Amino acid sequence: MPVCVTDIERVDERVVSLFQGAEVATIHEAQGRKGLLASYMKPIYRPAKIAGAAVTCEVAPNDNWMLHVAVEQCRPGDVLVVAPTSPCEDGYFGDLLATSLKARGVIGLIIDAGVRDTATLTEMGFPVWSKAVFSQGCVKETVANVNVPVVCAGALIKPGDLIVADEDGVVVVSRKEAEGVHIKMEARVANEETKRARFEAGELGLDIYDMRERLKEKGLRYVKTRQDI
Amino acid sequence: MPVCVTDIERVDERVVSLFQGAEVATIHEAQGRKGLLASYMKPIYRPAKIAGAAVTCEVAPNDNWMLHVAVEQCRPGDVLVVAPTSPCEDGYFGDLLATSLKARGVIGLIIDAGVRDTATLTEMGFPVWSKAVFSQGCVKETVANVNVPVVCAGALIKPGDLIVADEDGVVVVSRKEAEGVHIKMEARVANEETKRARFEAGELGLDIYDMRERLKEKGLRYVKTRQDI
Amino acid sequence: MPVCVTDIERVDERVVSLFQGAEVATIHEAQGRKGLLASYMKPIYRPAKIAGAAVTCEVAPNDNWMLHVAVEQCRPGDVLVVAPTSPCEDGYFGDLLATSLKARGVIGLIIDAGVRDTATLTEMGFPVWSKAVFSQGCVKETVANVNVPVVCAGALIKPGDLIVADEDGVVVVSRKEAEGVHIKMEARVANEETKRARFEAGELGLDIYDMRERLKEKGLRYVKTRQDI
Amino acid sequence: MPVCVTDIERVDERVVSLFQGAEVATIHEAQGRKGLLASYMKPIYRPAKIAGAAVTCEVAPNDNWMLHVAVEQCRPGDVLVVAPTSPCEDGYFGDLLATSLKARGVIGLIIDAGVRDTATLTEMGFPVWSKAVFSQGCVKETVANVNVPVVCAGALIKPGDLIVADEDGVVVVSRKEAEGVHIKMEARVANEETKRARFEAGELGLDIYDMRERLKEKGLRYVKTRQDI
Amino acid sequence: MPVCVTDIERVDERVVSLFQGAEVATIHEAQGRKGLLASYMKPIYRPAKIAGAAVTCEVAPNDNWMLHVAVEQCRPGDVLVVAPTSPCEDGYFGDLLATSLKARGVIGLIIDAGVRDTATLTEMGFPVWSKAVFSQGCVKETVANVNVPVVCAGALIKPGDLIVADEDGVVVVSRKEAEGVHIKMEARVANEETKRARFEAGELGLDIYDMRERLKEKGLRYVKTRQDI
Amino acid sequence: MPVCVTDIERVDERVVSLFQGAEVATIHEAQGRKGLLASYMKPIYRPAKIAGAAVTCEVAPNDNWMLHVAVEQCRPGDVLVVAPTSPCEDGYFGDLLATSLKARGVIGLIIDAGVRDTATLTEMGFPVWSKAVFSQGCVKETVANVNVPVVCAGALIKPGDLIVADEDGVVVVSRKEAEGVHIKMEARVANEETKRARFEAGELGLDIYDMRERLKEKGLRYVKTRQDI
Repeated sequence: MPVCVTDIERVDERVVSLFQGAEVATIHEAQGRKGLLASYMKPIYRPAKIAGAAVTCEVAPNDNWMLHVAVEQCRPGDVLVVAPTSPCEDGYFGDLLATSLKARGVIGLIIDAGVRDTATLTEMGFPVWSKAVFSQGCVKETVANVNVPVVCAGALIKPGDLIVADEDGVVVVSRKEAEGVHIKMEARVANEETKRARFEAGELGLDIYDMRERLKEKGLRYVKTRQDI
Repeated sequence: MPVCVTDIERVDERVVSLFQGAEVATIHEAQGRKGLLASYMKPIYRPAKIAGAAVTCEVAPNDNWMLHVAVEQCRPGDVLVVAPTSPCEDGYFGDLLATSLKARGVIGLIIDAGVRDTATLTEMGFPVWSKAVFSQGCVKETVANVNVPVVCAGALIKPGDLIVADEDGVVVVSRKEAEGVHIKMEARVANEETKRARFEAGELGLDIYDMRERLKEKGLRYVKTRQDI
Repeated sequence: MPVCVTDIERVDERVVSLFQGAEVATIHEAQGRKGLLASYMKPIYRPAKIAGAAVTCEVAPNDNWMLHVAVEQCRPGDVLVVAPTSPCEDGYFGDLLATSLKARGVIGLIIDAGVRDTATLTEMGFPVWSKAVFSQGCVKETVANVNVPVVCAGALIKPGDLIVADEDGVVVVSRKEAEGVHIKMEARVANEETKRARFEAGELGLDIYDMRERLKEKGLRYVKTRQDI
Repeated sequence: MPVCVTDIERVDERVVSLFQGAEVATIHEAQGRKGLLASYMKPIYRPAKIAGAAVTCEVAPNDNWMLHVAVEQCRPGDVLVVAPTSPCEDGYFGDLLATSLKARGVIGLIIDAGVRDTATLTEMGFPVWSKAVFSQGCVKETVANVNVPVVCAGALIKPGDLIVADEDGVVVVSRKEAEGVHIKMEARVANEETKRARFEAGELGLDIYDMRERLKEKGLRYVKTRQDI
Repeated sequence: MPVCVTDIERVDERVVSLFQGAEVATIHEAQGRKGLLASYMKPIYRPAKIAGAAVTCEVAPNDNWMLHVAVEQCRPGDVLVVAPTSPCEDGYFGDLLATSLKARGVIGLIIDAGVRDTATLTEMGFPVWSKAVFSQGCVKETVANVNVPVVCAGALIKPGDLIVADEDGVVVVSRKEAEGVHIKMEARVANEETKRARFEAGELGLDIYDMRERLKEKGLRYVKTRQDI
Repeated sequence: MPVCVTDIERVDERVVSLFQGAEVATIHEAQGRKGLLASYMKPIYRPAKIAGAAVTCEVAPNDNWMLHVAVEQCRPGDVLVVAPTSPCEDGYFGDLLATSLKARGVIGLIIDAGVRDTATLTEMGFPVWSKAVFSQGCVKETVANVNVPVVCAGALIKPGDLIVADEDGVVVVSRKEAEGVHIKMEARVANEETKRARFEAGELGLDIYDMRERLKEKGLRYVKTRQDI
């Protein structure tokens, strides 16, 4: 029987705030290259960047009924995550639902399906990452689970997990790991700043990362022309 | 033998004017969720929104000859609709043809294939909804039909039908049904405005649409935590 | 054994300069409709337009090690061309490598794979044409060839060839043929200007290209209505 | 409002019998290269070949309710044609529905969606051409039209039209045109037999179709080696 | 740090045996339409049907090193489940690894990537469900997790879960739920047998499922011809 | 101007004979993992295995005219390789052309496009590896090159190169490298036989390839349960 879980534990607000402005690519690296949603998840407008706690919502194909159930579970700062139980590109979400989410303080939508009214959503400044833009409407006939773990665009997302999305895509960070990931991310960003300065100064990755010897060991040969091969 | 039909009956200009500014998603709902073209049909630039009568043009794969035949059949306010007889992403259409269409007052192109010169088309302000952007040129060797019913991106389009396209995609409304669809659309828009106000005020869809009882009947249970399941 | 070829012959700088501002579609036509990369190659931002000599770089799937080898082979005005040895959409390239390329005067990247940090790349003004935007990081374990002929997005590209890319896509012109292609392109552009003026004046392609007789020969019939068929 | 049309006019049984054993490719050519369904329509087992009259059935995404309505409209020798109102690969059809169709003498199913129980369907000898094989089940909540014209896998199919399917795919022939198409097909087959004998005897298409002169006119040059170019 | 978990709890052998011969579609229905892998997962030969406990194996893109680690964790009756950490169609698995798995009593492979040597695998009678058949070889450079929960072809699979695969595709049943699912499945199968007999006898689903009244309520109208609409 | 090169140098017949029965995956490994065609290239029937010299044929999209030119250039033992100049899935090839090729002793077709009459081709025993099966016919209007280097399904193929195809796909071996590749392949096959015997005897790849130490160095940890992590 489908359930709606009401008392989920969210990633700490203070932790979320540490990730404001962070880049998806950096977070993904910092947590050991996991948690990335499929590359087909695209923002409907650019620039767009959000970080918040996941409220998860399963939906049947072509059926957006459960979105209304999920809305009630959302708090200010949340990100609504929608996963159909089989692949579907129909337009589950439009400007009315966005109005409702906005009224509740929700900061964005991640949906492994289609969305519509994108012009209005853009005007409203309500960011969405979706698999498709498609006007095909949905029915409201089938119940499904809200706030249970879902697989969304190939990634496992649990209610309360941290979601970060930007122009590169979407990444999920497990609620319990978020603070630790932030620490690794900070180290990473600091290291990248140092590297960037050296790259800007014209140094080569070959030298910065000390790669020349290892390339030679692996068999790379430098030749003047292909005739020298 | 291929034909070019010259005296097609167009959706009434007055009726077309009623659809100026209307949204594809709304029209699609208003006419009972039919007539939507496939979700891969994308505008080459944003924002973009048109409404007009269809001149339909079949083309052979990689052959854009019939576009020139179709141009002559176009009148101010028309939308040219191009459907290849087998799937093809080649670049059937570029800035010269756009110049020609613009000179005749055509307001946009819907093509289930590729288009090129998109930078120039954007500068010209000539909107195109296409399956692909691809520079691959076409030959001019095979004749096909102009102004017969075509299947374009999965939708049946008859010459003279109403075409509306915006950032969400493209919808066709049968010429004879257009006025009736407009009436339903108006009712729909009015209803949506009322709903929007309620959503903005923080009311929930669960209450606005009176869903709670029916969700319960269908078996949805609310639990505090997953342990309660 | 993999090699890095150091002394490649580049298309002449003077010839490259002739192609600045040229359109991919026009070049493709001028060289006999060859050399076009697949239609899935998209610029990460618009507008974007480059012309330069190719430095080619093979990479193993999910392995961006050789990019660092390739960077050293780049000179000001070059375009880096990256081709994985089997299909892969991982994010081979981000802002650090872009910083390195920019420091060497490289004007853009063509990659038949994924790219990340697109927001930063856009700010930096470093244009990329890629198959995907994806944050998935790469390892650095496998050596491959630099500056050998590669197949990139379906097109054969030799080191030193001319690469031109714009909002429509990417085209390669063989180093030896580039000057000849430019001559044909000039003729083509001049011809198009004349045609454009005639189209703007309302003339039809049917008359400009003298198509009416040949359409008749091929069997096209004009009828008033479908009942006349 | 959705309707189920009960008294459709079917292509004449005698005409259908003329197409038994005919090849999809030949029919498609004979009727002027139209009526072919998309190349993704595949038989679930091979060999498989059917010809019969279409009963058409619209279905909502993930909703197979209307199949039961359509079954009742089927007669011996019919082919059931199912078209979802938006793209869907769910498994609309399995062995129970096949048992029902078989009991009514239906000879096969054409479905622009998914099918399941393919092992049992193969044992039963009930042929299906589908877009996908997928076990995802459907709901029964939404009504749609039966026996109205549908767009199925890109082709317009009217109730009563002739459907022919084999290992190459599926073609529809308009009910009114079927007899005429058969005549052209016969001529075509006879011609092909003559050609086949000549090809078997080692004659070349270049000579059989008298192509050499025209190839020369179009500019084809024969050279011994690439150095001669 | 990557781990290999050695003492996983497997679904009980007795429970597995209850699922021998069961159909993926039936199991999927019985467990509430969840656990289905994506429709692109295809058996390399037909017929093929397996049921066993999952040993799960993460792999880096284009890197099959961890397969060797996973092999050691397999017991007779197990099914090896392989999930790349980003999408990849390379050929991770061929006849040597199959020989190794067979020697350990493993009954099949589920891989969300490519496989090769399919002719030999067919001769050996080692069944594989994969996303692709591709000869592209892999490196052995990157470690990843063995026997942790993975997302494979869109489904969450935990080590020790029950995997059932047949010609329709692949389904996972949670270890703890397997026995309960079997009970529901039995009831379902019994019910289907009764239904099948009625369908074979020519009864209609409309009557068997008592649908006529509800269709009428939902607005379906029966008309003789389209003129009656 | 398009050319047909008549005197191509073919890979030596004796060398071709060395590859009869060889597996695509083995050859691909032996030549350093290059030369593989895209994974979408599928045989129209199984089993199927060929090795022969390539005659290459460019074709325009939807235009199979040049196939007739190419047929004349074929000798017994050749493999015809067809590459469209832009992506196309139309049915370029059917039973008549197969009859013609068979009469000339050609042993198979590799085509990066569609093929039709697959039932007849199967009966004839003429193997084809193609991107699609599609009945859509072609025109004969545009000339293109025969026996020049082509990019086919992502691989560069020069006339006279060795083509080997089996149920896993298609690989090209450069004419000049073929003999050397064979030597490496032999060594590889011998090595594989030894390995296979060890795997059959139950030895693990971890030991056969001596991987345990290196896995440990890379950080892989063995734990009893996930609680131990």
